[in-house]
Amino acid sequence: MDKKIKTVGLFGKYQDQTVVEHLRRLEEFLLGRKLKVLLDQATAEHFPGSKSPSRPRAAIGSEIDLAVVVGGDGTLLNVARELAPHHVPIIGVNLGRLGFLTDIQAETMTTEIGKILGGDYQTETRLLLHAEVMRKGRIVHTASAFNDVIVAKGELARMIEFETFVDGEFVHSIRGDGIIIASPTGSTAYALSSGGPILHPTLDAIAIVPICPHTLSNRPIVISSDSIVEILVSRIAEQHAYSAYDGQSTFTLQDHDRVYIRRSEHEVELLHPSGRSHFEVMRIKLHWGRKL
Amino acid sequence: MDKKIKTVGLFGKYQDQTVVEHLRRLEEFLLGRKLKVLLDQATAEHFPGSKSPSRPRAAIGSEIDLAVVVGGDGTLLNVARELAPHHVPIIGVNLGRLGFLTDIQAETMTTEIGKILGGDYQTETRLLLHAEVMRKGRIVHTASAFNDVIVAKGELARMIEFETFVDGEFVHSIRGDGIIIASPTGSTAYALSSGGPILHPTLDAIAIVPICPHTLSNRPIVISSDSIVEILVSRIAEQHAYSAYDGQSTFTLQDHDRVYIRRSEHEVELLHPSGRSHFEVMRIKLHWGRKL
Amino acid sequence: MDKKIKTVGLFGKYQDQTVVEHLRRLEEFLLGRKLKVLLDQATAEHFPGSKSPSRPRAAIGSEIDLAVVVGGDGTLLNVARELAPHHVPIIGVNLGRLGFLTDIQAETMTTEIGKILGGDYQTETRLLLHAEVMRKGRIVHTASAFNDVIVAKGELARMIEFETFVDGEFVHSIRGDGIIIASPTGSTAYALSSGGPILHPTLDAIAIVPICPHTLSNRPIVISSDSIVEILVSRIAEQHAYSAYDGQSTFTLQDHDRVYIRRSEHEVELLHPSGRSHFEVMRIKLHWGRKL
Amino acid sequence: MDKKIKTVGLFGKYQDQTVVEHLRRLEEFLLGRKLKVLLDQATAEHFPGSKSPSRPRAAIGSEIDLAVVVGGDGTLLNVARELAPHHVPIIGVNLGRLGFLTDIQAETMTTEIGKILGGDYQTETRLLLHAEVMRKGRIVHTASAFNDVIVAKGELARMIEFETFVDGEFVHSIRGDGIIIASPTGSTAYALSSGGPILHPTLDAIAIVPICPHTLSNRPIVISSDSIVEILVSRIAEQHAYSAYDGQSTFTLQDHDRVYIRRSEHEVELLHPSGRSHFEVMRIKLHWGRKL
Repeated sequence: MDKKIKTVGLFGKYQDQTVVEHLRRLEEFLLGRKLKVLLDQATAEHFPGSKSPSRPRAAIGSEIDLAVVVGGDGTLLNVARELAPHHVPIIGVNLGRLGFLTDIQAETMTTEIGKILGGDYQTETRLLLHAEVMRKGRIVHTASAFNDVIVAKGELARMIEFETFVDGEFVHSIRGDGIIIASPTGSTAYALSSGGPILHPTLDAIAIVPICPHTLSNRPIVISSDSIVEILVSRIAEQHAYSAYDGQSTFTLQDHDRVYIRRSEHEVELLHPSGRSHFEVMRIKLHWGRKL
Repeated sequence: MDKKIKTVGLFGKYQDQTVVEHLRRLEEFLLGRKLKVLLDQATAEHFPGSKSPSRPRAAIGSEIDLAVVVGGDGTLLNVARELAPHHVPIIGVNLGRLGFLTDIQAETMTTEIGKILGGDYQTETRLLLHAEVMRKGRIVHTASAFNDVIVAKGELARMIEFETFVDGEFVHSIRGDGIIIASPTGSTAYALSSGGPILHPTLDAIAIVPICPHTLSNRPIVISSDSIVEILVSRIAEQHAYSAYDGQSTFTLQDHDRVYIRRSEHEVELLHPSGRSHFEVMRIKLHWGRKL
Repeated sequence: MDKKIKTVGLFGKYQDQTVVEHLRRLEEFLLGRKLKVLLDQATAEHFPGSKSPSRPRAAIGSEIDLAVVVGGDGTLLNVARELAPHHVPIIGVNLGRLGFLTDIQAETMTTEIGKILGGDYQTETRLLLHAEVMRKGRIVHTASAFNDVIVAKGELARMIEFETFVDGEFVHSIRGDGIIIASPTGSTAYALSSGGPILHPTLDAIAIVPICPHTLSNRPIVISSDSIVEILVSRIAEQHAYSAYDGQSTFTLQDHDRVYIRRSEHEVELLHPSGRSHFEVMRIKLHWGRKL
Repeated sequence: MDKKIKTVGLFGKYQDQTVVEHLRRLEEFLLGRKLKVLLDQATAEHFPGSKSPSRPRAAIGSEIDLAVVVGGDGTLLNVARELAPHHVPIIGVNLGRLGFLTDIQAETMTTEIGKILGGDYQTETRLLLHAEVMRKGRIVHTASAFNDVIVAKGELARMIEFETFVDGEFVHSIRGDGIIIASPTGSTAYALSSGGPILHPTLDAIAIVPICPHTLSNRPIVISSDSIVEILVSRIAEQHAYSAYDGQSTFTLQDHDRVYIRRSEHEVELLHPSGRSHFEVMRIKLHWGRKL
C-alpha cells in the first residue's frame, strides 16, 4: 500500500442476501472515517439504499486505492484478477467460514479494517498467472488466473493426451483427466485435492500437478515462477478438452492447441491485520494437528 | 466353460484395419477345426470376404459357446457386458500391447487358442457391476459395468457434492470431481489413477474411490461385493453431473438422483492359457520391479 | 457370544492411573449383577483393594466368558491376540478418546455394558493374522497380529529389499522402508498412514501396503484372506531388518528369511451396543465430512 | 568453474572392483592432458599401481580444481558434502546405471570429460543443507546434507511426535514415522518415495515431507530456501529417535532436542556436458511416458 487511502471500493458476493447487511455496516464505517466509497456495479444492484456511487468492474480499478471484498475465496479470486492491472491492495472478509484469502471475520471486520487503515497491517504480494492459447501460430485466447490454470478432458471424453514443456524443454507426455498449473495461492485449492504439495504463499514457484494420470510414476513438479509452462494438447479422444481459469471461466480447446502459462506481469497485493500466520490458517482449514 | 464348444463368435475392434487380417486368420483356424463361426455384425461390416454369417450384437449371445475378442481391453469390456446374460466364456486377444484382460498376443493366438480349445486352459470368473439411477422414486436408467461406475461433475462444473451410503448406512459426504465404484477388474483402470488400491481380480469386493476430494482425509474404501453402494447427488454446482459406465456410456444426472451400484446377477467368464499369472500381467503393465 | 456369561475378565491399560477408578466402578457393577470377576494379573497389580481374584494372562482365557478391556485400541489389540485361542468375546471401553475398537465411553460404560449383558448387542467377527518366520527351512519365530505384520528396515539401514509372493506366485520385488500386511482391522492403523485403503472390518481380505517404496508404481494390493503372503527378505543393506506384530512385539530378521503371513485359525469376537455404525466411527476418527 | 583446471581429484566407489579399471583409464586420460591427478586416499587404497599421489579426504579439497567421482549418486553425495567448503566443481560418472547426479556413462567418460575440459559444458549450482541439533540450549551436533535431513523414529519405536516450525512460526505437530527436509536434489530421492513433489534442481526451495503421518491431512510443504526449519522432538514413544543426513550418517536424538535445518553457506557446483536436460534424466529414471 504505497499511497494514502482516499477511496475504497466495495465488492460483495452476488446473490448472497446476508452480504448486504455487512456491506451496509462497512459503508457506514468507511464514510464515518471520511473516506470515499465506490461500489462495484454488480454488487450495487443487490444493495438497495446505498449512499455511494457505483462503477462497472472494468472502470472501478482506476478510481480506488483499496478494495474490500466481502464473500468467500471465490469472490476474492474474481475481484483480484480484474483489479491486478491497477495495483489496488485487497482486504478479504469472509461470511463465517475462514478462507485462505478472506481471513477477516465479518463480525469483527470494522475493528480489523480500522487497524489496517490505521497502519497496523502486513502486506503480502502474491503472484498471478497469465495464460495464452495458441492455435496454428495465433493467440486465440488469453486469461489470468490467481489460483490455477487447468487443461482437462471434456465431460464425455475418457481422457486427454498432452505433452508438457518447461521453458521449451520437453517434460513428459501424459494421458489422464488433465493437468493443473497452480500458483502458490492455488496450491491449497484444486491442486491439493489432486495430490499436489502446499507451496508457501510467497514462494516464487509454480506447481505442475497431473489429474488422475494413467502413468503411476507421474508426480507433481515444482518449478521457478520465472519459467514458462507449455501444455500441448496432442490428442483429444472422442470429445473436446478445455482450459479453465480459477474454475471460473473456461475456453474450449482443439487438437494441437498449445496453452502457455507464465507468471503475470501483475501481482496481487493482500492486506492482513498484523500478526497473521499463514500456517495457522492452514492448520484450521486443513484440520492439522494442533500444538501438542 | 461347461459345455462343448461348437460355435465361436468373433468380435473385432471397430475401425482398426489391422484387426481384419487377424480375424481372417482366426476364422480360417476355427473353420479348420470344424467349428461354426459367427461374426458380430458390426465387426462383419469391416471384414469383407468373410466366410461366416453375422448376427447383431443383441442376438449373437444365445447362439455361441465361446467368444473371441480381438482388440484392446476396451473392446473386451464392451463385449463382456453384452454377453454376460448368456454365460458365454470369452478369450481376449490383444493387437500388440498386452492388456489386463486381453492377454493373448495376436501373433501366437492360434497356438494359444488351440491349447484352450484342447482343454489346456484356466477359467476365471469376474464380477460385473449393475447400476440403477433412481429419480423421484422411479428407476430412470439402468446399466452394467465391468470396470467401473463413476458419478462425476460435468465439464463446466467446478465440483459436485454427493453422499455415499453402503447397505443404507451413511458413509460420507464429499465435494469433489466425483467418485468411482470399481470392480476388481476395474481396480487397475481409472480407479488406480485416482489413488485406489489394486484388488485381486477374483476378490469378492468393490472399491469406492473418490476423485480429487476436497477433504484430504477421504481415502479409498473396499467393501464386500455383497453390499449395495448408493450415491446421492446432493448438489450440482452450476452445471450438471453424469454417471458413466466403463467410460463407454453415460447418463446425465439431476439434483437428488440416487445411483445404486451392486454386483450384477451375471458374471464374466474369461479363459486364459494355463499358467497365466495375474501378477505377471500387473508387473508388465505397471512397470513394477522385477525379481531381484 | 454362544454361552451364558458367568465370569467376566477385566483388563486395564497398565500405568494409567485414571483406569483404576473405572475398573473399580466396573467391578462393582459386575459383582452387583451376580457375575464372577477375574482380573488380569498385570492389571491387578495396579488395582489395590480389588475384591476379585486375579489370573496370569496366559491362564485367564480358559476361565472367562467375556473380556472387558479398559484403555485404548493398543490395549485391546494386545488382549485380543492372547485371548483369541479361547474364543472369548471382547468389549472395549475407551478412556475419553473414541477408538476404532474401543467404542464405548468410560462415562457410560455401565449402561452400555448392561445393555450388552441384557442381550441388546451386535457381534462382530474379525480376522486375526498369523505369521511364521522361516530360516534355512526351519520356523524360527511365530506370532499373531490383529492389526498388521510389518517387515521393515532397521534404524540405521537406508532401505531393505524384499520379494513378495501370494500363494507362491511372485508379485513384486521392492526396495524401500518395508511393507505392511494388514487385516481389515489394521487397515485404519499404520497401513492408512502409508497410503493403504480402508477395508470394511468384516471383509475377508488382507491388504499389502509398501512403505515408502522406491518404485513409484507400487500400490497397495488387496487379496483374499484365504491367501498366504510371503515376504522374502532378499538383501539387507548395511544393517538388519525386523518384523513387527501390531507394533507391539518385534523379531530381528536375517538375509533370506521368509515371513509367511496368513489368516489365523482363530478369530476375534467383538461385542458392540446395538446400532453401532462402523462408518460413523470412521467419520469421527478420520474427520470426514458430515452429512450435508 | 572459475579458474583454469590444473589439478583433478579422483574419487571412486569403495569396495567396487570394476571401478578400478575406470579410474585407471581416467588417470591415464588426465595425465595425457598434462593435468596433475590427486587420488582420494580411501580410493587409492583400492587402486594398486596408480601413478598419482593421494591425499586424505579432509585435505584434498584445498589442492584440486576439479573432482571426478566414479560411482553412483551415493558416492557423489558423500564427496560433495566434504568438498563443498572448497568450491570444487564436480563431475559424476556412473557405472552403468544413470544417476540423477552421475549422468556420464563410464564407457564414454573420456570423450565427455574431454569436452568439459575443453569448455563445452554447463554449470549447475545446487543448494546444500546445514543442520544443527540443539539440546538444552547447546549445539550438540552439526552436519551437512546434499539430499535430505530426516528426523525419524528408532527401529523399535512405534512412532515419534514432533513439532515443526518455519522461521520460528509454528507449522504443525505430527505423530508418525518421521519427517524429511529435502533439498531440490533430494526431492527425487527418499522424499519422493514418501509422497513429496519433485522440485526443479535449481529452485531456491526446500521440501518438508512427513513420513507416514497419522494425520491424513498432512501434505508436503514447499518453502523458500531462505527459511529455517525447526523440528522439535516432543515425545519419543518407548524408544529413541534419530536424525540422518543423506542416509549416510546419523545422530541419536533425545526428548526435546531441536533440529534446525537451513540452507548451507556452501553450494555444490556440478558440471555436465552441454545439452543435458534435467527432465530427460527424470523421464528415464522415473519411467515417465515418452513423447507421444
